[in-house]
Amino acid sequence: MNNRPSLYTSLSPALLHLYDVRESIVVIIDVLRATSTIATVLYNGASSVIPVDSVPRCIELGGQLSAITAGERDGKVAPGLSYGNSPFEYPRSFVENKTVVLTTTNGTKLLHMALNNGAPTVITGSFPNLTAVCDFLVDQKKPVILGCAAWKDRFNLEDTLFAGAVINRIKEHFDINCDSSQMAESLYLEAKDDLYEFMKTKNASHYHRLTGYGLEKDIRYCLQPDGANVLPLYVEGRLVVKSAL
Amino acid sequence: MNNRPSLYTSLSPALLHLYDVRESIVVIIDVLRATSTIATVLYNGASSVIPVDSVPRCIELGGQLSAITAGERDGKVAPGLSYGNSPFEYPRSFVENKTVVLTTTNGTKLLHMALNNGAPTVITGSFPNLTAVCDFLVDQKKPVILGCAAWKDRFNLEDTLFAGAVINRIKEHFDINCDSSQMAESLYLEAKDDLYEFMKTKNASHYHRLTGYGLEKDIRYCLQPDGANVLPLYVEGRLVVKSAL
Repeated sequence: MNNRPSLYTSLSPALLHLYDVRESIVVIIDVLRATSTIATVLYNGASSVIPVDSVPRCIELGGQLSAITAGERDGKVAPGLSYGNSPFEYPRSFVENKTVVLTTTNGTKLLHMALNNGAPTVITGSFPNLTAVCDFLVDQKKPVILGCAAWKDRFNLEDTLFAGAVINRIKEHFDINCDSSQMAESLYLEAKDDLYEFMKTKNASHYHRLTGYGLEKDIRYCLQPDGANVLPLYVEGRLVVKSAL
Repeated sequence: MNNRPSLYTSLSPALLHLYDVRESIVVIIDVLRATSTIATVLYNGASSVIPVDSVPRCIELGGQLSAITAGERDGKVAPGLSYGNSPFEYPRSFVENKTVVLTTTNGTKLLHMALNNGAPTVITGSFPNLTAVCDFLVDQKKPVILGCAAWKDRFNLEDTLFAGAVINRIKEHFDINCDSSQMAESLYLEAKDDLYEFMKTKNASHYHRLTGYGLEKDIRYCLQPDGANVLPLYVEGRLVVKSAL
């Protein structure tokens, strides 16, 4: 029992420094919609997703690699890019064997923070790849930090709900001495019978922001388990499917 | 409806900068045990509580003012101080008309951050003065930031539960567009029938740290509403009872 690895939940990038990522697997969680879309793009056969932190870098790299450029700002495709953040923009017929350069704000920021802090293993997670994430974490037997991308450093419900879903599934394999994780699981247990309804009822800021752009379909997909059940692993600047290594 | 003031919950001092405190009432929340003890000391007739951030400063000021010096480090009365953080150390027969200089880590740090960031009104809250806090916030009709002191910047359950209790009571008077607040209320609603049992079950790090020192009685008191129902207001370096101004 005492040999189980630790598991912590970081509720915001502004709290990541409180956790020692140097021996840990860090799970980047940006449910609406970056890490849901990353899982989907890879599930549909893209060779890799390259996360970058700015629109100019996205344009530059997209040109160099003849890659698909994707990213939104304020809910619209960013000027100079070709596609947005919706998972439904990336069917197999479009992305198979292609590279996607994706710029997001919260998720990419957290991913680079984890790398800069020395995380040896970084993966991305959201409900569409819940089982793949859980299986990987149990299999690896290493310390885990569930990193919520949040919204401009502010706590959000959906990333916390995903952390809670992971904890609920795999907690017996870990030593969890972390109030954030306890809270996340409690929240998930309260919400799990209808995550979409929970988000709507709780007046989640993200929910209202996104539904303002008519994106209910995206939200329902992003909260649904295992619709794109692959494991995106960060290797040399790219997210690739673990099994494809 | 649109004229209601805003209410936000800051889950950690490391997140306080995300909120504009300059027009707000900031509620400092450090349930185990600083703000529970502050309410108790004032309820029992102390003239004021002076929160300071270090043991040397506590000793210095205690000597200058012939005040009671109080504070713990690692669960024990700090060397050089006379009393600890337990509310039960401060009965009326001991503290009436006296000044208490109290050093705590998390609560005092957050209080000074709020002041340095320009908060015009700072009060302290915990379950023992839940109703006094709620009544004041409703009466003032100003924006509110519920500031959880947390534990070395890490989220904790007990401060969040108190934020949730406040929100649950006064939410109809405020415009709440804040996922932290929604989560806090959800957590409180799940826990409210037996807060002590909830804390114990959830394996709260604070609970285990404190009960390790045999402080179950303190915890039960700190989670019980309205045992010391006064409003500590910060005025010129001191926390004093609002009605006594």
